[in-house]
Amino acid sequence: MVKNYKKISAAILVIGNEILSGRTTDKNVSYLALWLNNNLGIKIEEVRIIPDIEKKIIQNILILSKKYNYVLTTGGIGPTHDDITSKSVSKAFKRKYVYNEEAFKILKKYYGNKNFNDPRKKMAKMPMGSLLIHNPSSAAPGFMIKNVICLPGVPSIMQSMLHNLKKYLRPGSKIYAVTISIQTVESSIAALLDKLQKKHKKFVEIGSYPFFRLGKIGVSIVLRSDKKFKLQSCHKEIIKILKIKKIKFLKGI
Amino acid sequence: MVKNYKKISAAILVIGNEILSGRTTDKNVSYLALWLNNNLGIKIEEVRIIPDIEKKIIQNILILSKKYNYVLTTGGIGPTHDDITSKSVSKAFKRKYVYNEEAFKILKKYYGNKNFNDPRKKMAKMPMGSLLIHNPSSAAPGFMIKNVICLPGVPSIMQSMLHNLKKYLRPGSKIYAVTISIQTVESSIAALLDKLQKKHKKFVEIGSYPFFRLGKIGVSIVLRSDKKFKLQSCHKEIIKILKIKKIKFLKGI
Repeated sequence: MVKNYKKISAAILVIGNEILSGRTTDKNVSYLALWLNNNLGIKIEEVRIIPDIEKKIIQNILILSKKYNYVLTTGGIGPTHDDITSKSVSKAFKRKYVYNEEAFKILKKYYGNKNFNDPRKKMAKMPMGSLLIHNPSSAAPGFMIKNVICLPGVPSIMQSMLHNLKKYLRPGSKIYAVTISIQTVESSIAALLDKLQKKHKKFVEIGSYPFFRLGKIGVSIVLRSDKKFKLQSCHKEIIKILKIKKIKFLKGI
Repeated sequence: MVKNYKKISAAILVIGNEILSGRTTDKNVSYLALWLNNNLGIKIEEVRIIPDIEKKIIQNILILSKKYNYVLTTGGIGPTHDDITSKSVSKAFKRKYVYNEEAFKILKKYYGNKNFNDPRKKMAKMPMGSLLIHNPSSAAPGFMIKNVICLPGVPSIMQSMLHNLKKYLRPGSKIYAVTISIQTVESSIAALLDKLQKKHKKFVEIGSYPFFRLGKIGVSIVLRSDKKFKLQSCHKEIIKILKIKKIKFLKGI
């Protein structure tokens, strides 16, 4: 799509049987994708969801860390037996799986000497040489090793740590987006959008998404570009055509 | 984990820029995973979310269809320029991308001769030799070619079609699950769960998931097995131990 912009790519690797079984609906992918684009201009290009199986974690870490600038993992860095992300990432990069001194101190202070048991100590273990991502919610830090960032799976905790991750990541060009929601069906505007996409293909990506909500049937046309000016002119052109065609605009969708 | 059961595996391939950008939160993965397990005993072992790019769709279809018994795709089978799933799957399997006669008739009848325009006709195009998955919501059918099943991305429409997909899929052993929600923190029960997982590793998989909701902090212990009896006895054992430890059970979580 858009050319001449500084592309920084990333993948998300969701690690967890509870997501694959359907028991839990993932909420981290959309949050991370929006946050990374809005705050750093980093674009998520692929997501994978895999089970808590060491071999699969290692394989996917190696594949994705080669393909993209960054890999963000969620899940599997807690204290229980099924939390095996840190150990698996250590193995993937052939780094020792060791207590991080700073993480150990943070957790010891947080829990107090008496309550700092082995499962809690485990949360201070990570690949040797990791950078810490501080956790203002529940102390246990995430970490970054090479281009892989390991975050917890609980959405509120994960979200609270992103501010502390920001300094480690190289920013790219932000993608601007604008949505036009209209009362129509996709097939009525398909030819028009096809023509417009061909005309603007150098700078603007046009997506079309039907919806059925709030009792309304409609289509959201989404324009995306890293060039704000190009986006605005394409936006104006589409609005003008839709008005000529007397298509009704929908607000609050 | 569980041995001696008939394993039928599947992957989900979510196709859509709107999910990767974070604009739309995927709702199909958890729905499909639960539905496939509950109705057919089919287990989702991997999920990938990729953009509307032909080359990436082809690559992933080929990789996943070799690794798993089934691949279910969602998204990209509508009438607009960015709907390229059917064409890409045709290319992946080197099948001609043609009008399916039955799908053409269904759509023609649904829209009427006058309104059956080219974008709508496009929805009848699919890989030669596909089986149709009828769509009781909006007529345009999904399809199955080899072990790949292509479904729409709009959740309500996708869900309405699953009943019509059922007959094409070979069932496996259902996985039974039971959840015990308790008022504690993971690190307090980590050693216990580790011991129990080792004891029951042949038949039961034990997962531990912390939560922070409805103003309560707690942990959900999830037991999973294809052997109902083994699951029940493991369940009873854990309940007994938790009662001895005077840990509070939480309901409605």
